[in-house]
Parts: sequence; C-alpha cells; structure tokens
Amino acid sequence: MSALIGKTGIVVRNAPRADAALIDELGRFGVATVHEAQGRKGLLGASLRPIQQGVSISGSAVTVLVAPGDNWMFHVAVEQCRPGDVLVVAPSSPCTDGYFGDLLATSLKARGVRALVIDAGIRDSHTLRQMGFPVWSSAINAQGTVKEVLGSVNLPLVCAGQLINPGDVLVGDDDGVVVVRHNEVHQVLEATRKRADLEEQKRVRLANGELGLDLYNMRQRLADKGLRYVDSLDELEG
Amino acid sequence: MSALIGKTGIVVRNAPRADAALIDELGRFGVATVHEAQGRKGLLGASLRPIQQGVSISGSAVTVLVAPGDNWMFHVAVEQCRPGDVLVVAPSSPCTDGYFGDLLATSLKARGVRALVIDAGIRDSHTLRQMGFPVWSSAINAQGTVKEVLGSVNLPLVCAGQLINPGDVLVGDDDGVVVVRHNEVHQVLEATRKRADLEEQKRVRLANGELGLDLYNMRQRLADKGLRYVDSLDELEG
Amino acid sequence: MSALIGKTGIVVRNAPRADAALIDELGRFGVATVHEAQGRKGLLGASLRPIQQGVSISGSAVTVLVAPGDNWMFHVAVEQCRPGDVLVVAPSSPCTDGYFGDLLATSLKARGVRALVIDAGIRDSHTLRQMGFPVWSSAINAQGTVKEVLGSVNLPLVCAGQLINPGDVLVGDDDGVVVVRHNEVHQVLEATRKRADLEEQKRVRLANGELGLDLYNMRQRLADKGLRYVDSLDELEG
Amino acid sequence: MSALIGKTGIVVRNAPRADAALIDELGRFGVATVHEAQGRKGLLGASLRPIQQGVSISGSAVTVLVAPGDNWMFHVAVEQCRPGDVLVVAPSSPCTDGYFGDLLATSLKARGVRALVIDAGIRDSHTLRQMGFPVWSSAINAQGTVKEVLGSVNLPLVCAGQLINPGDVLVGDDDGVVVVRHNEVHQVLEATRKRADLEEQKRVRLANGELGLDLYNMRQRLADKGLRYVDSLDELEG
Amino acid sequence: MSALIGKTGIVVRNAPRADAALIDELGRFGVATVHEAQGRKGLLGASLRPIQQGVSISGSAVTVLVAPGDNWMFHVAVEQCRPGDVLVVAPSSPCTDGYFGDLLATSLKARGVRALVIDAGIRDSHTLRQMGFPVWSSAINAQGTVKEVLGSVNLPLVCAGQLINPGDVLVGDDDGVVVVRHNEVHQVLEATRKRADLEEQKRVRLANGELGLDLYNMRQRLADKGLRYVDSLDELEG
Amino acid sequence: MSALIGKTGIVVRNAPRADAALIDELGRFGVATVHEAQGRKGLLGASLRPIQQGVSISGSAVTVLVAPGDNWMFHVAVEQCRPGDVLVVAPSSPCTDGYFGDLLATSLKARGVRALVIDAGIRDSHTLRQMGFPVWSSAINAQGTVKEVLGSVNLPLVCAGQLINPGDVLVGDDDGVVVVRHNEVHQVLEATRKRADLEEQKRVRLANGELGLDLYNMRQRLADKGLRYVDSLDELEG
Repeated sequence: MSALIGKTGIVVRNAPRADAALIDELGRFGVATVHEAQGRKGLLGASLRPIQQGVSISGSAVTVLVAPGDNWMFHVAVEQCRPGDVLVVAPSSPCTDGYFGDLLATSLKARGVRALVIDAGIRDSHTLRQMGFPVWSSAINAQGTVKEVLGSVNLPLVCAGQLINPGDVLVGDDDGVVVVRHNEVHQVLEATRKRADLEEQKRVRLANGELGLDLYNMRQRLADKGLRYVDSLDELEG
Repeated sequence: MSALIGKTGIVVRNAPRADAALIDELGRFGVATVHEAQGRKGLLGASLRPIQQGVSISGSAVTVLVAPGDNWMFHVAVEQCRPGDVLVVAPSSPCTDGYFGDLLATSLKARGVRALVIDAGIRDSHTLRQMGFPVWSSAINAQGTVKEVLGSVNLPLVCAGQLINPGDVLVGDDDGVVVVRHNEVHQVLEATRKRADLEEQKRVRLANGELGLDLYNMRQRLADKGLRYVDSLDELEG
Repeated sequence: MSALIGKTGIVVRNAPRADAALIDELGRFGVATVHEAQGRKGLLGASLRPIQQGVSISGSAVTVLVAPGDNWMFHVAVEQCRPGDVLVVAPSSPCTDGYFGDLLATSLKARGVRALVIDAGIRDSHTLRQMGFPVWSSAINAQGTVKEVLGSVNLPLVCAGQLINPGDVLVGDDDGVVVVRHNEVHQVLEATRKRADLEEQKRVRLANGELGLDLYNMRQRLADKGLRYVDSLDELEG
Repeated sequence: MSALIGKTGIVVRNAPRADAALIDELGRFGVATVHEAQGRKGLLGASLRPIQQGVSISGSAVTVLVAPGDNWMFHVAVEQCRPGDVLVVAPSSPCTDGYFGDLLATSLKARGVRALVIDAGIRDSHTLRQMGFPVWSSAINAQGTVKEVLGSVNLPLVCAGQLINPGDVLVGDDDGVVVVRHNEVHQVLEATRKRADLEEQKRVRLANGELGLDLYNMRQRLADKGLRYVDSLDELEG
Repeated sequence: MSALIGKTGIVVRNAPRADAALIDELGRFGVATVHEAQGRKGLLGASLRPIQQGVSISGSAVTVLVAPGDNWMFHVAVEQCRPGDVLVVAPSSPCTDGYFGDLLATSLKARGVRALVIDAGIRDSHTLRQMGFPVWSSAINAQGTVKEVLGSVNLPLVCAGQLINPGDVLVGDDDGVVVVRHNEVHQVLEATRKRADLEEQKRVRLANGELGLDLYNMRQRLADKGLRYVDSLDELEG
Repeated sequence: MSALIGKTGIVVRNAPRADAALIDELGRFGVATVHEAQGRKGLLGASLRPIQQGVSISGSAVTVLVAPGDNWMFHVAVEQCRPGDVLVVAPSSPCTDGYFGDLLATSLKARGVRALVIDAGIRDSHTLRQMGFPVWSSAINAQGTVKEVLGSVNLPLVCAGQLINPGDVLVGDDDGVVVVRHNEVHQVLEATRKRADLEEQKRVRLANGELGLDLYNMRQRLADKGLRYVDSLDELEG
C-alpha cells in the first residue's frame, strides 16, 4: 500500500467507511481524549489550526493529493464525497496558497461533507465561518490556485505528519485533528468512553481539592527518584 | 520612482487619492475576490493578520517607513492623514516591536483614518478592538519603541512583499490585505463586480448539487491529462 | 542565585509574595502600561499567546521547570500553590507538547490559582475557555506527556526569555505577559498609576484632534535631524 | 500495516532488505534524480539538513520511534542493525534535543551502519564530521536526552512527512533524503539510469548553447498559452 | 510602472544595463559596504542564503516571475540573458520547491550568466558548487517543478522584500544580496569607494588599539544621554 | 540581582573572572560534554549558530544589552574588555540586524577578546572567517544599525534563553554555546574531566562492537517496561 503514497493521476471511487453511529459518537469526545484512548497515535501536526472556535466534528476521510498552487483535484474529489465525509488534503510540496473558498464549501455542504482538513491555505475565511463550514488549515491566504496538474483522490497520503487512508476517521476540535483507523473505530470508541468516564471521576475529586499527588499515588515514586523538599531558597544558597 | 524606495528624512504632503465612492464600494467585496479580479496581483504577504474578526475595510494608503524599534514617523504621518485613509507601515528591517497602541489609534480616529496595516508589531490589542479601530499586523507585542531615527512618509515602500505607493487603495478583511493601484481602481472595481456576479451564479448552482466538474466542464480535460478512475484500492495493489 | 537556574530534583515550599492588594491593582492596568512604567523591563517573549480574548490577570509566580514531554512536576507544583498564584512553567528544552489540560486546571482552580503561563503547549483549549481558566502558552496541542523525569518547583527559571523568581508578580492580557519583581511591586504600581493618568490626559487631547507633533513638541527636533517636507513625489523625481 | 504506525513497546527483529548491489548503485545518483525517476514520490521534508557537505549515501532503513527528549530506543536499535543499514529516527512529537552523539556513532560504525537520518537534533557535530559518519538532521543541539520511555524499532513510521517502512532504501546527499520502497528498488534504479543518461545528453547540448526552449520544443506551447514578447517596458507603459 | 508588478504572460526583450566596468568594480566590495554607501537601501531579505562560501558577484538583473511549483519561465528567461547578467527569480506565492538544478545552470553558464538569486528553492546543490555557479536561494530542496503556468520575464518584481527592475545591479556575497538601481550605479560606486577607504583607515587605527569611543568621539554624547559608570555590581545592589 | 536585568544606561567596570587556566582547559572539551558535566544546565538556545566550522573557544563574559537596530553599546563595551573575554550580546527585543562587522572585530581582537556570542545578526561574515574571529549569532545580515539609544554593559542579562552574569564562562563549539557560572568553573571542570574520561572508555568498548544494551546494562529494565521482540511485521499484522 505504501507504494501508492504520492502517486498521481488516480481516483479511487470506493473507500471503506466505518459505522456512522460510531463515528458520530467519537466526535462527541475531545481530540485529546480520543488521542489518549488509542495509545497516543494519530495526532496530526500542530500546524493545523481551526479557523473557527468551539466546533467539534468527526467523519470519514476522502483524501486528496494536490500539486502546489493547484486545486484542480478538489473538484474531482467533490464527486467522490458522501454525507458524513471529511475532505483531507495535502499538497505534494509545502504550499500556503488559498486552495479552498466559499464556492467549494457550498459544493461540499450540498453533498453533506462535514469539514475540511488541509495542510495548506484556505480563503474566504469569514464567509466559511458564517456558513458554518468547519475548516482546519495551516494557513489563511487569499492567494488563488490554478487547475493544471493532476493529483489523486482516495489514495493513502501523509497529511501534517500522519498517514491517512481513505475511510479513516478524522476527529477535530479546538486542539487540532486526530485520525482513527477505520477498522479500529470500534475499539478506540470503547477505550475513549472508558477514559472519559475515568476523567470525569477524577475531575470531581480534583474539584473537591484532592491533590493529584494523592489521587495518582505519586509521592513514593517521586521520593524514590530523589525529589527533595526545602523550606526556602535561602536553604539552598546558604 | 524606485530610487525613492528606502529613502529616509522626507515627508511628501500630497498624494493622489482615488474616488472615494469607488474605494468604498471596493471594500464591500472580499479581498480574495478583488485579488482575483485584478489578475492575482497585489496581495500582501500572509504574515499580516487581522487583530479582529469579521471586519472589512478599504482606504487610501499613507505610507510610513520606520526604523526598527522606532515609531517617531507615526506622529509625523498622522498630520498627513485625511478621512478615508489607511496607514501602511513597514520597518526598514524586520521588527516585531509594538509600534502602535491606543493613543495613536485615538489620534488616527480623530482624523478619520480607517485602519492600520503594519508589517511589524502593535500593542493595546484589547483596547484597539474595543475602540473598533481595525488593524492588520505581523505581531502583537507590548514592547515599546523609541523616537530617535527618521524614516519617511508618503514615499513608495515595500510592505509585506508588495510595493505600495502613497494613494494606492488597500482592501482588508479576515483573509488579509490587497493593494489596488490608485489609477486602476475604476477598472478593478468593474472586474470585481463582474466576478462577484459570476460567483453568485455559480454559488446557486453548486448549492443545488451541481458538480464543479460539470459546471466548469472539466471532465474531458482531466481525461486528456490521463486521470484514471478505479473502483477500489485493491485494484491498484492486486 | 543564578547557580540554581536549571537545577532539578528540588521543591521549595515557601516563596516571598507581594501584597495581594497591590498585585490586584497592578492587574487592572494593561501589560503595555506596566511594562513602560517599570522602564521596559520584564516582558516575556511574544511566542506566549493567550488562548482566550479580553482577559487580564495578575498573580504571584509559582515556578515549575519540566522535562520535554513530561508534566510530572505540575502535580508537585499544585500542592505549593495558594490563592492568587499564577503557575509559570518552562521546559528544560523547547517542547510543544500539551502539558496541561482541563483536569489540572480543575485542580488549580480548586486551590485558587488564577492562570497558567507556559512556554510550551496545552490542550483541552475549548474546555479551558469554558471553565474560565486563563492560559498564556506557546502552543495548543493534544499531544500528551509522561511522568518519568524530575524537574523543580519554585526555583528561579527563564521562561520565554525572562528570568522569573518564585513570588515575582506576573501580569497578563491580550498583549502578552510581563513580570514585576516581588520587591518592586510597590514602586512599579506607583509609576504605573502615574503613567496611566498621563495617558488618559493625552488620550483626551488626541481625541480632540491635537497632533502628537505638537503635544509632544516634536517639530523642532525633527527639523534638527533634517526632516524635509515636499509637496509631491514629482518634486523628488523631477 | 498503518495500524502499527505510532505503536510503542515493540522491536521487530527482521526486516526485508533490497539487493545490496542495487542499493549501492542507487546511491551513486543524486537525490533529485532518484526522486524524479520514481515519479516524484518519497522526498523527505526539507527540514532535514546534512551536517556535512559533499557526501552521498544509500542504505536500508532501520526505523526508530522515540519519545521527545528520550533516546533509549537508539541502544535497542543498534542491535538490530546490519552492515549497509541507515538509522531512520522520528520523535513521537516534535523535539530538537540532541539525541545522538559521537558514542552512538562509534557504536553504529562498528556495526557497519552508513548514516543517520533523524527528524530531531544531534550533537558532537564536529566529531561526527571528523569521524566521517554522515548525518541528516533537523537540528544541531548539545541538549542531551534521558532513557525512560519506550518507543519502537522497525515498525513503519512517518519521518519528515514520509512513510518509511523498515527495509525501505534511503538515499541522501546535499539536497536532502529520498525513500525508495524496498520492493521497488529494481524498477526505480532502471528509471534512474535512464534519466541520468538523458540528462547527460541534454547537459552537453545546453553546454553548447542550445536553448531549452528549442531542446524541449516549448515555443509553440508558450505561444498557445498567450505568451507575448515586447521590446521594452516603455511599450507596456505607453 | 508599479502596475506591471505581478503581471504575467509577458517577456520584455530589452532592459537597460549599467556600464560593465562599473558593475564589476562594485562587485569587488562587500554587500554591507555597498548597502551602507547607498544610504542603507536595497538589501534583500535575510532569507536568501548563499549555497557556497567565500564567493562575491555582481551583475545585471534579468527578472523572472514564476508560479508556485512551476519553473517554465526559466527556459524563457535564458534566451533573454547576456554575459554579465544575474537571474533574479521570485514566485508569485511562497514556494520552497527546487526550481533550478545543474541543467539550467549549464545553460546559464553557456550564456555567460554569473549567478542566480531566487526567493525559492534550488536542487543539485553539490553539483552547482562543483560547477562554480553561484546561487543565493531561500531553500535547498530536491522537489521538482512543472511547466504549465506562464509568469513573466523582465518586468519589475519584488524579490525577498525588494523591488527589482530589469537591469538593476545585484551584488552578492556571504552576507546576502543588495540591489543598486541601474541609473545610480555610478554614484553608488563613488560612495562605496569612499566608504571603503574610510573603513580601511579606521581598521588600521582600531587594530592599533585605539577605541571606537575615541575614534568616533562618542564619550560626550554618551554622557549627555546619561550613561553612568559604576565600579561593580555591588554598588548597584547595595 | 534580578532587578538589574533589562536596566539601561549603566556600565559596570569590574566583573569577577574565573581562573584563566581553568577557563582554557574547559574550552578544550566539547560543549555537549561540559553541559552534561554540570547537570544539563546553562545551554544557550539553538538559534545561536557558529558562522565558522571546527572552532572551539572559552572565555569570560562581558555582557552587552543593546536596543533593536542600535549597536552603540558595542563601542562602550570594547573598553571594558580584557584578554580572554567573550562579548555576549542580547537585544532588548528580537532583532536580526547586522550589529557587528569586521571593524568591531578588529577592535576586539586588538584587546584580546576571543569571540562574540550574539542573539542577533552580524555582517562581514566572510571577512570575520578570514580574520579568524569566531562568532556565534542568530542571523547573518548586512543591515546596519544606528547609535542613538543607551543599553548597558556588564549587567546580568538573558541571552538566547539563559541568564548570563558578567564574568560567567562561555564555552562554544560547532554544537552551540554553554554558560558556566564563574564560581562553579572549578567543580564543573572536575566533573567534565571525569565525564570525558568515562566517555573515552566507553568509546573504545563501543568501537570494539560491544552493545550499549550490555555496556549500560539496559536489557532487564527494558523488559520490565514491557519491551517486546517479534520476528517480523507479519507476526503483528496476522
């Protein structure tokens, strides 16, 4: 499969998609919780920032490889999208151009696409926020693109440092974006629910003033590592 | 004219200004649309970010060249400003100091200046937002500046990678800032209106589910370039 | 004292704290004003950005040195915090991991801590905003950390380019963060009040259209430096 | 396979390796030529810089995932290395610490390892150059690391934006690093030889003054796109 | 003229060129000296780095505007080059792709071109150094480019923050690149000679141990500004 | 003492200096070794890069705080320098201007100063290399500076993230720069010698093919943490 990464000139029509109900539930947890629950794998690089605040999404990846400064493949990709999908776009070399604006967002919304994740620039950011179309991008830039060079749709690609397969599940919120393999959604969801429950219990105890030192039973291990308490700086300098 | 770029110690009192009604109308279109309409020229670098959200402006450039860490020329420039102007500031070498705060904003507002575009830092960002004085800057930084070294006012300069002449028209929104030459405002506005109309027509069709592939008649050209559709990844790996 | 910077394995239980009323009053002025009033010292680097907008805070520093990707010392530090404190965290080498999330914030809130200043990443940013727990950080990143390596609590450290002693006063707003030495709070507050009064007087005069050139009496000094006024660019090019 | 990316706590003892003679020959061509020959796939991100000049290498990847600031897995990886290998290292979150110095280089040299490719920092750079052990890294930094947290050896990983499988072939020179899939080495080498031959023919013609416009037969296509020649700038401004 | 900046689809055949002897002499002084001598104007941004060390050049600019990831215009530009020229290239939006390699360098050398200045990437860096073809670029990157989109040749453009007119003189060395307007070469050369002579005199005196404080007569002015000498830190802290 | 950081307008004439023989010996070890030997404290940020290769230095800090774009204090500092000193310079806000060139280097050499460490730009880099005057800087930039604003000499300051006191010892090599407190030089040198001896012993064993896993006795601890060996990837995927 890795031989397909970076290939151009190909569109794959069908990709596996995980169960819609599971995807939706996954999206109700935060990115940090999902990332922890699946063993700290799959976090996209922190260069991806949401253009809006307070929005969480989840959906199935339709992957798009584009040439620098060329958004032709977006139009090809739209046709492959289904309700519940998320468009995941990576340029074949770094580019901050504005690949995507309100017209493409209108088209994606009409097909039920939930969000765009792009390791490049977008534009019409104000209109996108007004439309309620969520975007995670690495730049906001009015610079337009051309339509001259083929890329690919629905091949595996690397976006912001993570391998994304078509049909993998993306979860996004104010912290960033995490990918869950489509065949691991069920088990990751289970682990996420458990972690969220545990966190809720801890939250109550911490809110009541219990210390993490006690809650997590850290004192002995800290002492074993040699942590030393002194009463004041003077003690150290004297 | 290019011999004047970078010169210091000069203030030019009068600059051409385009028709106020045309400038105002231009500001009602987005930066991306204006940029497209004038042939993708004049976009300032994406390091310039608005400190506020959802605000659009347009106005005539009063240009200010400043020394690094020295905002003396701002005070000289204020006197040259007229209602409808935009202050466009570039340092003679890169600097993120906070050149501009609420006092200077008060002074500019009193003269009817509409916005500040600065390839350097500003401060008092919360107060500036409360005052409703729009700013596009490359940094937010409480670090103040001195008043020791001359720069210039109303000479042509390069700001965020674009040549700006005094009197050129600046348009800014959440995407960034674009410059329109003062003697091209009329024709750019015409082109902008046409483009906006066309976009509106496309928006309706895309919202109704029509594909860009069909709307822009792309299928044949994609096939000519060799785009190949397959049903699944297995087909490629088999 | 400087020999203690960078040491690990030590927790200092008591740190000097300045007068609470003075700290509170200091927080009602902006960071830029405090920075000016104390002679332009103590501004933390502009890489520290608030994750919220329109919030101002002040408080006494509890300093925490952490290893890259390791937040163990946070739990040790919580126990040393008192109402009115601000946690100030620096990694021993640059790291953008998400050291801090809503559970630690819950714990700090329970102890009356006012804010976190961290030259590294945080996560759960949406929840932190909802909780009203203010943060200034250099990254937002869902990537979690481990608990394996000792750092220190309440030793002097360098955070975002500034030396911070335990008990020093931190002031933060939309512009960034400034440190005031705990034994200088009184005199800096005096100077800040005076400066704010002066600024208010100037604001009124500038709002009424008076020019900074006159208000600050700059015309003669500009002329002495050789500033030259011309009527138009043509004059220079002719 | 993609489910294994990011997993920790695992060492894979055996990885496929391509034919040694083919790998060696591949290393005699430049990175740019190999990258072109395999269809512009597999180039590692430009943040990876050689610490030496004028050195070219090729070899089989032994992959190492490390925690931020923790180089424990290097020692585990050394044991898995064979003559002709290249160590390919990625941190689980961005880190510029100096993971690698002259002692580890000594150990790798003793096992016949040809180079290190690391998307993080190294140290002892002067000694490494003196030893003749080639390194491509994203930082040079004396900051040391700890040995507390498990990573993995010989699982697929993403390094500088490219998926690397254990046994894939890495080629490095002054331009950077490219990965060739281990099962594609033969066909990529064929294509590389052909391309190099073609380039040599073109080089001779270009050196003799023939223009690329003619050599590549571009004039008609440029005219079709609308390229227009004028005699001087005056013609355009008049 | 500024209306031509950013236009595409045009090649200007003839550009003014300054006197060859003057250009050559200018190149024998360092960039810093020339920059000072012309009043600190015209320095290209510090993102431009030489790929070689210890090489100084000067020459007449042939300007090339290119699309991101598209080097088609290089081939058009070669035909417009004459002996003594320097190719100055800027992308219409930021791009780090490798636009230029040893084949194009061979072609430029055959026409007597002296160097390339490019605010984007190049490749084959080792071969370029071996050929002795000097390059100042903002990236080294094996990533290739396509030939699909028109740019322009010999229109004014902004490169690394400076306006460059066709025929302007570029001077480059290890410090970077500076532009001298073609109609100012004579006067700048005069000023450069004078400055270099003065610097030589100062160098001798400083080498003999004379202090800049005395040589530049600074003591009184420092005292007037309030500079205060104390014998030790204790004096300040006591 | 920390109250003095950031103050301007002061020159301290006398600073403590450590024993010259100890300083010299410290400089014969690498920065990484010294940094380790003193407990991983005192490493200056990796933005400081040497402009030369293969040069190691050590010396006593003469500290200089400068305004952005203003190198006046250099001339004041020269007078305070003695043979064996190193000039350590930090700007009061970030600046990449070329503060320092061959004339100042000539003056420093005449006084026996060994090197410059500056968290800002320098120029005349080729000449500095030819003169054999070593520099660690964060930028190379021909942009000159003015002489208008006071800074300070021989007050403590923060340079590249480390507190430097006048008289502290700086050690620099290709990896970067580390500071050793002047009253800790003796004990750090002892620790450095020991560490270097130990490293030499390990180097011999590693060169002979012994594994770090055995040399450092890591196998049991890795197993305790749960490290698992498998024979091939197939085992994990099956």
